[in-house]
Amino acid sequence: MNDRLRWIRNNLKTQNIQGMIIQNPVNIHYLSNIDAEGVLLLTLKENFYITDERYLEKVQRTLMVDDEIVVLSSRNLIQEDYENFFMFCENVGFEEHYVTYAKYKEIMHKYKVHSLVETEGIIEKQRQIKDFNEIKNLRKACQITDDCFTYLLKYIKKGMTEKQIADEIEKYFKASGGVLAFDTIVASGENSSMPHATPTDRKIISGDVITIDMGCSYNGYCADMTRTIFVDKIEERVKASYDLVLENQNTVIEEMKDGAQIKIIARIVEGNLKMHGHDPMHALGHGVGMNVHEDPILSQKSDKVLKENMVIAVEPGIYIPGKYGIRIEDTVLITREGTEILTKSTKEYCVI
Amino acid sequence: MNDRLRWIRNNLKTQNIQGMIIQNPVNIHYLSNIDAEGVLLLTLKENFYITDERYLEKVQRTLMVDDEIVVLSSRNLIQEDYENFFMFCENVGFEEHYVTYAKYKEIMHKYKVHSLVETEGIIEKQRQIKDFNEIKNLRKACQITDDCFTYLLKYIKKGMTEKQIADEIEKYFKASGGVLAFDTIVASGENSSMPHATPTDRKIISGDVITIDMGCSYNGYCADMTRTIFVDKIEERVKASYDLVLENQNTVIEEMKDGAQIKIIARIVEGNLKMHGHDPMHALGHGVGMNVHEDPILSQKSDKVLKENMVIAVEPGIYIPGKYGIRIEDTVLITREGTEILTKSTKEYCVI
Repeated sequence: MNDRLRWIRNNLKTQNIQGMIIQNPVNIHYLSNIDAEGVLLLTLKENFYITDERYLEKVQRTLMVDDEIVVLSSRNLIQEDYENFFMFCENVGFEEHYVTYAKYKEIMHKYKVHSLVETEGIIEKQRQIKDFNEIKNLRKACQITDDCFTYLLKYIKKGMTEKQIADEIEKYFKASGGVLAFDTIVASGENSSMPHATPTDRKIISGDVITIDMGCSYNGYCADMTRTIFVDKIEERVKASYDLVLENQNTVIEEMKDGAQIKIIARIVEGNLKMHGHDPMHALGHGVGMNVHEDPILSQKSDKVLKENMVIAVEPGIYIPGKYGIRIEDTVLITREGTEILTKSTKEYCVI
Repeated sequence: MNDRLRWIRNNLKTQNIQGMIIQNPVNIHYLSNIDAEGVLLLTLKENFYITDERYLEKVQRTLMVDDEIVVLSSRNLIQEDYENFFMFCENVGFEEHYVTYAKYKEIMHKYKVHSLVETEGIIEKQRQIKDFNEIKNLRKACQITDDCFTYLLKYIKKGMTEKQIADEIEKYFKASGGVLAFDTIVASGENSSMPHATPTDRKIISGDVITIDMGCSYNGYCADMTRTIFVDKIEERVKASYDLVLENQNTVIEEMKDGAQIKIIARIVEGNLKMHGHDPMHALGHGVGMNVHEDPILSQKSDKVLKENMVIAVEPGIYIPGKYGIRIEDTVLITREGTEILTKSTKEYCVI
């Protein structure tokens, strides 16, 4: 059996859970490499993947002997088969953060499980700690994102629209063997004051502040980086905001290491922003991996501790409604002693 | 209040439901035009949109006075406020097909609703019947998709990869003011036998069968069209499969009209395919609109009836594992007397 499947099975066992129904496609991909609709069943002795006839060929091509996953076509299964999968299982886990209420009821009815139990993100927790190959993919995703930013500094010109710049970023990622990890944000002028603006037809003009929040996904792993750049000049008050955001981002990164408490780090930075009259409008950061937003969330409400080989996007920001916004974000690997910043683009003032 | 909100409120009333918690962003957009994270509450007297501080500006800019939706920032709400929203409501609806089991428990805890009831896709049912503006957008999405297909017939050359063709389709849609409605399928040669293949680096060669399943999304409305084309020549057995698929697609479209029973149409066609030794590997079709896959599903299991102004993608196919596949799909508007096919690309043999 592959390592990830064995790990999850052992982990379930320690919680007195003898089987699990896995439906989140990202979790399925993580455990099996399968990339086709279906459901992964971990039963007492075996692993099954139940898929639609039309995906059978694709799934068979993906799996390795080592995975030890038996593929079944849903059309060949009758109600009794479903009821037999978890025979002799006292507790069977499901993904309560993925499965809808309607699906939950359907599962109950279909598998006739004795006790269907919540698993509290057991697979997502495992996914927080990245292995060697995952870090390699994340490094590459960050490198393409960095290269793209270097390219953008030459590419962006006055008169271009936000949409045009966002499209160019997508093109760049594709040409580099990646895809968009998420919808790019290019927010210029007054639009930059909205942390989650969608690119518009607004044209870049002199004096603009431009926030670019982008990330390449490489082999299914996401980078997440934001840089705020300036057109022709920087106003003094904007410069002061930029310095404050950068200072706070540095503080977070300096405090991060294996064993560090998230809430303490968040408290320092959110306190500092508030002291300067700014309201932290979103979380300071979040895990990154197969999803661009994963646990852990960097916030004062968190009672989690950072661990070696977590990968975290750190993104403090300041937003002055209707005027401008500044955000600086890096994807950072947690190490035993501190951090390694995976996105390496300059954080000096970039005036184009 | 806008028409859609009024309609849904009246519909809820007839079911003795006095309030509803709406979280599906597509449904929220449908009812309010809002395109930002949050939750829409229909309470006894008022409508509220609760959003994150960072989206406040964006939401305020979207709403019209006529919508009658009060916008609230989640950070200003305390537990008591949530408990007060549905005071005096006997039954409050939620979206059991969207809300996860974990969220369901969270809602129960947060709103302390007397009785939280399933709404059986009440908004999705309303969305099945398209209004004038929706049909206008769907027409435009289909037209761009058609234009793109005409362009592709000249563009595709031997030696190009499937990925290259898929990228060109995306570029074409964007240049026409649209975006991809879904990930394009370009499946050539033996890949075409997989109904849901992902574009690969396989190069187009002479004799290839190429299945192209694509759709433009315009103003948030999706087209869905598949054409199967041929490189240099068509083998006789492939021609026979093509004729059979087209004949069956024609049968479906001829049978469709306001009041037609889905299961009867599906039975005729699936029976015909089976008689010719083919296994219908997926549903014959599905609704299209704000989502590319919506209700109703065209299948023998359906007990639904077609209605005027539904828009349906009709997509019979034949798949010979490891050899080739043929699929022909059109987006079709149901009218009082019959249908209007919105995608108008040729279904003659296309040999490039």
